[in-house]
Amino acid sequence: MNDTHSPWFYRRCQVLNNCMAKRADILVRFGQRVRELRKEQGYSQENFAYACELDRTYVGGIERGERNLTIRKIEQIADTLGISLSELLEGV
Amino acid sequence: MNDTHSPWFYRRCQVLNNCMAKRADILVRFGQRVRELRKEQGYSQENFAYACELDRTYVGGIERGERNLTIRKIEQIADTLGISLSELLEGV
Repeated sequence: MNDTHSPWFYRRCQVLNNCMAKRADILVRFGQRVRELRKEQGYSQENFAYACELDRTYVGGIERGERNLTIRKIEQIADTLGISLSELLEGV
Repeated sequence: MNDTHSPWFYRRCQVLNNCMAKRADILVRFGQRVRELRKEQGYSQENFAYACELDRTYVGGIERGERNLTIRKIEQIADTLGISLSELLEGV
């Protein structure tokens, strides 16, 4: 093995290979998770947006996998669902 | 109980009360979690930034709780650490 590269170089290749080989886009996966939990708790999209203090069209965009939202917005959603961030991202 | 408000109104108040009563800022909590896991895996901040394909000063900002990062960046960090998003956000 050509060891001119640092271990971090190989770590980076490993991460890249992992990423490319797998999963649907994170935004799509997160959107599906939010929709699933929202419906489980009986919210319409409109009521959920109101409870989250987010715009309804923004929630629609999240669920369609179009929003690269920030960790603050993720926390807003988790708080509204009454679950932890870790639970919200379970399986995502 | 004055029921002119929808159940979602009360849900929103509940969420607000919960939020204000508790936790340090999400950015600070997440930064501490990243630092903890980075150190556990033996990365320097510089090596970790390289492996994540993020700028070192950006990683420094994350760990100081100054960055409201997006879910894509969170995934980049989780992938580099070789853990799920849910594990990365455990306890945050």
